[in-house]
Amino acid sequence: MRPARMTRGRVGEGVPGSQDCPSIGTVGLMREGLTLEEAQKLILEATPTLGAETISASDAAGRVLVDPIVSMRRHPPADCSAMDGYAVRCEDLLGTSAERPRKLPVVFEVPAGGHAARALEAGETARIFTGAPLPPGADAVVKQEDTDMGVERVEMRVEPALREHVRDGGEDFEIGDRLIEPGTILGASHLGVLASVGRTVVSVHQRPQVAILSGGDELVEPDRPADQGQIVSSNSYTLAAQCREIGALPIYLGIAEDRPEAIEKRLRAGLGADALVSSAGVSVGDHDHVREVLEKVGCQLRFWGVLMKPGYPLAFGIIEPTGQLVFGLPGNPVSTAVTFEQFVRPALRKMMGHRALHRPVIQAQLGDSIRKRAGRLHFVRVSLEKTSSGIVATPAGNQSSGVLTSMIRGQGLAVIPLEVESLEAGAEVDVQILDLAFFDREERGF
Amino acid sequence: MRPARMTRGRVGEGVPGSQDCPSIGTVGLMREGLTLEEAQKLILEATPTLGAETISASDAAGRVLVDPIVSMRRHPPADCSAMDGYAVRCEDLLGTSAERPRKLPVVFEVPAGGHAARALEAGETARIFTGAPLPPGADAVVKQEDTDMGVERVEMRVEPALREHVRDGGEDFEIGDRLIEPGTILGASHLGVLASVGRTVVSVHQRPQVAILSGGDELVEPDRPADQGQIVSSNSYTLAAQCREIGALPIYLGIAEDRPEAIEKRLRAGLGADALVSSAGVSVGDHDHVREVLEKVGCQLRFWGVLMKPGYPLAFGIIEPTGQLVFGLPGNPVSTAVTFEQFVRPALRKMMGHRALHRPVIQAQLGDSIRKRAGRLHFVRVSLEKTSSGIVATPAGNQSSGVLTSMIRGQGLAVIPLEVESLEAGAEVDVQILDLAFFDREERGF
Repeated sequence: MRPARMTRGRVGEGVPGSQDCPSIGTVGLMREGLTLEEAQKLILEATPTLGAETISASDAAGRVLVDPIVSMRRHPPADCSAMDGYAVRCEDLLGTSAERPRKLPVVFEVPAGGHAARALEAGETARIFTGAPLPPGADAVVKQEDTDMGVERVEMRVEPALREHVRDGGEDFEIGDRLIEPGTILGASHLGVLASVGRTVVSVHQRPQVAILSGGDELVEPDRPADQGQIVSSNSYTLAAQCREIGALPIYLGIAEDRPEAIEKRLRAGLGADALVSSAGVSVGDHDHVREVLEKVGCQLRFWGVLMKPGYPLAFGIIEPTGQLVFGLPGNPVSTAVTFEQFVRPALRKMMGHRALHRPVIQAQLGDSIRKRAGRLHFVRVSLEKTSSGIVATPAGNQSSGVLTSMIRGQGLAVIPLEVESLEAGAEVDVQILDLAFFDREERGF
Repeated sequence: MRPARMTRGRVGEGVPGSQDCPSIGTVGLMREGLTLEEAQKLILEATPTLGAETISASDAAGRVLVDPIVSMRRHPPADCSAMDGYAVRCEDLLGTSAERPRKLPVVFEVPAGGHAARALEAGETARIFTGAPLPPGADAVVKQEDTDMGVERVEMRVEPALREHVRDGGEDFEIGDRLIEPGTILGASHLGVLASVGRTVVSVHQRPQVAILSGGDELVEPDRPADQGQIVSSNSYTLAAQCREIGALPIYLGIAEDRPEAIEKRLRAGLGADALVSSAGVSVGDHDHVREVLEKVGCQLRFWGVLMKPGYPLAFGIIEPTGQLVFGLPGNPVSTAVTFEQFVRPALRKMMGHRALHRPVIQAQLGDSIRKRAGRLHFVRVSLEKTSSGIVATPAGNQSSGVLTSMIRGQGLAVIPLEVESLEAGAEVDVQILDLAFFDREERGF
């Protein structure tokens, strides 16, 4: 018979100072039972922003710029026409109007992409198209609607203002102009601007690699038959998808058998990553081994336990000397997903160079009353409904952190502060939005 | 000398009924000068939802489910322990308390992933771990904190309630339960649930292929030297990124030279796609050829011209008999990007099975006054600032639709309705959010 062992996960949902035990090494600076704010601060202080990599501009959407984009081109490349019409010298058309039209000879044409054959002399005009460079000597464009659109000779019916319908060379940008600042998250329009200045590769912050470790003899992969008592490992798949959602690169190390050698073999495959995320499945017993192996590879635990529910039994450490972050997440599916959101996601976003590390938060009215014990911040999954008096957040079904399917209910997490013991229906709450589709609209909205 | 030709783009920013000319075929049901609402309605009515494809679950994030997910497994697979502790028969512990503890022999152990060696007899207990199946005969679990954690014999200090700390087999889901409904946008949590029911492949709506055609002798690719009068083609790169942003698959057909044979060759390479998007660059003159070629391949124009700015000279048609959608977008960079947002993006999202086709819209106060002529809906790029009295939307710099870099200013488009002629600073406006990062937070927000 195996001896009773310290556990994490279910039991770990207990109180600080209980018999809960961290899954990773306990030497050094370890603190216990932190508030969410304290835990997030410690994690983010230990999180580096990753260095640069140079990638194809067409792959750069969503990435954060490292070097400023400085224009290598001038746009427009020269003074050019903003209209289809006729290049003129204003002095030739003083006093011209529809009632007092004036005919000028059309001496050449400047097509788009072409250039003027020669300078425009006094009393001459040239056919010109949008974007085509203004001939030397010309100082305005008469748009074709203000003419008879003649081919050999054209009747002008307006007196143009100086530089009317002319775009200045370099109006948009000059060579050397700084167009996009470091720290910018590149969107579709930025990629258009990159193309326009001739930039096809671009320097952005690297994407973190995240090694995901799963462990426990009761776990099987989703494509394998489950023997009696076995369940499918799902946390790693949720975690990998949460990583991909923000552009991080998951490395799934697989399910480690509950033996130190097996755990060490898998874990060592993840030591080159920027972060290691261990999720316990719903098993117990593997944690002492994981901790033993982590200590062996140099992990120093920084804290254990966060005053929140779900998610108390969270451990955070750092592997020295590499600085790899280690997150020991609680094993219940909902606890795993929620603690990833609150702690791992902001750290990974910091690594990628983001400044806005946190999810959107909206204010809503509670659709139902809530009772809890003081001493922990609660995250309550809520479904959100837009009503005439605002957004109503209603707790979504079974809130048990062990119920797999409860993860997919509701679009956000209502935040019930640490010290609060009850909230009545109608009370205002902050709701962290997990599903950005919440903001999308079935109706146009304007 | 080339004859004067009808144009699109700059001149096309004129008024309905002007000499603007659509770039694509004009036979059949063509209407002209529609409102944005009418144009969107016509487009969406002509837009099909694409059929299903079966893909790896790990690639399915953001995709829209076609077939419901029906569980092939039961979870938990059997009645199991919700705690680390001892499986008991309640009748053996009637009246037990810390003051009146009772010792029971520990006759076997049920590890996680294992199963009971035999049934529990009267007066016996078994060591049990979280998630492990309850032995036959047992009807509750005493958690280890309520015992002395004995190995051979254990002292019980509570009287358990019937089925206390027991999770029912199938509590989460039974075989045959319908867990995820068609039409669901799959997120990280859904992928976890898919794994947990053993689904590794999943049926989702296909992603549309979008052929992107660019044309004009004055355009060069971003990596080529630009001769005098030439400019870099950037619209196609913006459009490709706008497609990728929502999961559509751009096929860039390149820059067609301004000859019918050259245009036809490139365009035919895009006829297998679900949509064809033609952007004119800032050139003129190529449009008659594009239109001629489109007529040749069976394109029927449905409408031309939308009462909006930027973006009036928009054409929409359908290639028969394939039903391929054809969007002739105005060539100015801002017009191209804005018309993609209003017309192409919702259509592509409908193809992918989405119900919420439209961008988020928020209410804001204008930071500056706006004057316009009635008769067109205006989209004004605005930067958004959160203030104590709400969100302030301030027009962001030069609004010229020809200024490439103006695309990257501001996070949204303020919508100034068709009939409005002026709005004062402080007036409430709808703002369409183009940059979802607007919702992200630098501070946690709760």
